Amino acid sequence: MDDPITTQVDDETGIAHLVLNRPKQRNPLSTSMMRAVTAALRKLGDDATVRVVVLSAAGSAFSAGHDLSEMVGRSLEDEREIFEVCTEMMDAVQSIPQPVVAAVQGPAIAAGCQLAASCDLVVASSTAVFGTPGVRIGLFCSTPMVALSRAVGRKRAMQMLLTGDTIDAATAAEWGLVNFVAAPDQLDARTDELAARIAESSPLTLAIGKQAFYRQIDLPQDEAYELMAETMADNAVTCDAQEGMSAFLAKRKPTWTGK
Amino acid sequence: MDDPITTQVDDETGIAHLVLNRPKQRNPLSTSMMRAVTAALRKLGDDATVRVVVLSAAGSAFSAGHDLSEMVGRSLEDEREIFEVCTEMMDAVQSIPQPVVAAVQGPAIAAGCQLAASCDLVVASSTAVFGTPGVRIGLFCSTPMVALSRAVGRKRAMQMLLTGDTIDAATAAEWGLVNFVAAPDQLDARTDELAARIAESSPLTLAIGKQAFYRQIDLPQDEAYELMAETMADNAVTCDAQEGMSAFLAKRKPTWTGK
Amino acid sequence: MDDPITTQVDDETGIAHLVLNRPKQRNPLSTSMMRAVTAALRKLGDDATVRVVVLSAAGSAFSAGHDLSEMVGRSLEDEREIFEVCTEMMDAVQSIPQPVVAAVQGPAIAAGCQLAASCDLVVASSTAVFGTPGVRIGLFCSTPMVALSRAVGRKRAMQMLLTGDTIDAATAAEWGLVNFVAAPDQLDARTDELAARIAESSPLTLAIGKQAFYRQIDLPQDEAYELMAETMADNAVTCDAQEGMSAFLAKRKPTWTGK
Repeated sequence: MDDPITTQVDDETGIAHLVLNRPKQRNPLSTSMMRAVTAALRKLGDDATVRVVVLSAAGSAFSAGHDLSEMVGRSLEDEREIFEVCTEMMDAVQSIPQPVVAAVQGPAIAAGCQLAASCDLVVASSTAVFGTPGVRIGLFCSTPMVALSRAVGRKRAMQMLLTGDTIDAATAAEWGLVNFVAAPDQLDARTDELAARIAESSPLTLAIGKQAFYRQIDLPQDEAYELMAETMADNAVTCDAQEGMSAFLAKRKPTWTGK
Repeated sequence: MDDPITTQVDDETGIAHLVLNRPKQRNPLSTSMMRAVTAALRKLGDDATVRVVVLSAAGSAFSAGHDLSEMVGRSLEDEREIFEVCTEMMDAVQSIPQPVVAAVQGPAIAAGCQLAASCDLVVASSTAVFGTPGVRIGLFCSTPMVALSRAVGRKRAMQMLLTGDTIDAATAAEWGLVNFVAAPDQLDARTDELAARIAESSPLTLAIGKQAFYRQIDLPQDEAYELMAETMADNAVTCDAQEGMSAFLAKRKPTWTGK
Repeated sequence: MDDPITTQVDDETGIAHLVLNRPKQRNPLSTSMMRAVTAALRKLGDDATVRVVVLSAAGSAFSAGHDLSEMVGRSLEDEREIFEVCTEMMDAVQSIPQPVVAAVQGPAIAAGCQLAASCDLVVASSTAVFGTPGVRIGLFCSTPMVALSRAVGRKRAMQMLLTGDTIDAATAAEWGLVNFVAAPDQLDARTDELAARIAESSPLTLAIGKQAFYRQIDLPQDEAYELMAETMADNAVTCDAQEGMSAFLAKRKPTWTGK
């Protein structure tokens, strides 16, 4: 069986494209798919030429969520393995140094919604929909809700989780789950434009900032400040920060060394 | 004195209605009212035929908040008792297994605003208003703000708390405090429709999901995932999840056993 | 060199105005500016005649952020000192007893955005913009993101942090960073009106409430309730609460003693 994903790195821009590639099955997050995504993310994470990762999907659906056929008639141990593999993938999205931007072209459902919500930024086609309908098939979307409730807040997450109803892209943007909504034929261009904008910055600075963001977000404010004051002082003495500030003061373009 | 609340369970739909029933006094949350609500919620929580609880109020106000006449000239110990009884009621809303949907038809003020904010979902009439005006009478809405600030965020909670000004239903929906706004004469129908939609799901799944939601929401993300991965694996091997997934794959309607 | 800030207290209203006063340099948050703001806030905090503090800025910019010329070619220890001084200022805004309302008339950038986000409430001119563009000069806005991400949520904070792009006042209001947007020539009047509204309440009640807000906001809900139930009982037995409740029940205006 061919690879459930494809990856491609543009050497010139540093933008990597990771594509879920089981369009006919609506890109189910089977354990093999999830392991492939995790491995690809880690490989891209280790690749110093990669500045930004764009995560998208082939076909009409972004992802229909877990592969239910894998979850019927299994032991508790088997089920545990599926959710461990899933959590590893979600963690990989946020723990690699480069920003990950999701381009959501169609339904992002259950763990598919969670995958989009786990990306640092989300661009959605106006035709995309987001939902956590596990409750309707007896399996509450308990792992998806970790990412969802942290993105859209309590009442709105509860609404999606308890009813199983989807929200459209405009609503997702209004609720803070999606950053930008694009016309279907503009989704790729809009996403690449955003990725290119981010890729202009120092990869070192992006890596420091992304890691710092997730380290501080769940801390009480005073602990967050203690950690971030130290992070920012460390950042300030790096070559790229000194170059960036000097260039800004001299009104010239900075040259990054990634150090 | 007659009971400050009424409860009714529809045996066919499994929807329970709990109604605050002191319309002339604007449904004050006196200790007797709060104790009655807590007892009723716990009783409904133990009733396996109840699928969803709708919490509403008789008269023109949802609730004007605490009964101030109980709080004037009292000892610190008396005041403590009031807020303990109040916190128990708010906790009961979130700790019973069934989803609780508030139907807010008029002013929901101070602890009344807190009660609405503590429900899993809120439907509001377009004539409803929400406020935490304790600051204006010398008693800052410190317990209401626990629920309020977790629903609407910091700046908006501060605005309501420091000014004491109310917000209308449309603003409450925009801020994530309210899920749906209905015309006054459609409030009951809209709420019951939402409750009926939720009641279609397995009561076991709803109970697992509701409990899981509140267990994970305040945890750091990695701890939340650890707990939820285990919760979801446990959920996946239940009869209702196996039935639900099998029915979905076979494109038939599931039959819940609640096991 | 003259003082980088001015302060003025209106004895009649109890409203204090603290103004950043380096308009030509766009009010940079140099260590001397930050130390002056912190000292002024603490002094106002100790002044029992002050009911509300309005924080504004002279010139066309609210604040362009840190003074970069102070951060080029410095040792790690020097950089650390800058962020410690900065964190002290942000903490002073939230730890003085009186509410602090920001009036943002122009760009609030990097630490300037953080300063606005740290105020209890924010009124913005329709011409104001907010941004955290540190990433563009090699220095990720890691301390600003502590306040920013807690005000606008994860995805929106990430968007501002990773792109460095600003948002306008209307967007800031939609995202919960700004409470009210005013026409440029109405900013001062709107801010003073809000401050006067708040100043009508008991200064003791405001102090109890503000401190309580920040103590509870980062706690798990059950711990928050335990603390707030005690806070509210203590508040209820104060003279001002007893006076406020009695006045409300008697439909007369309360007289505060601040006790």
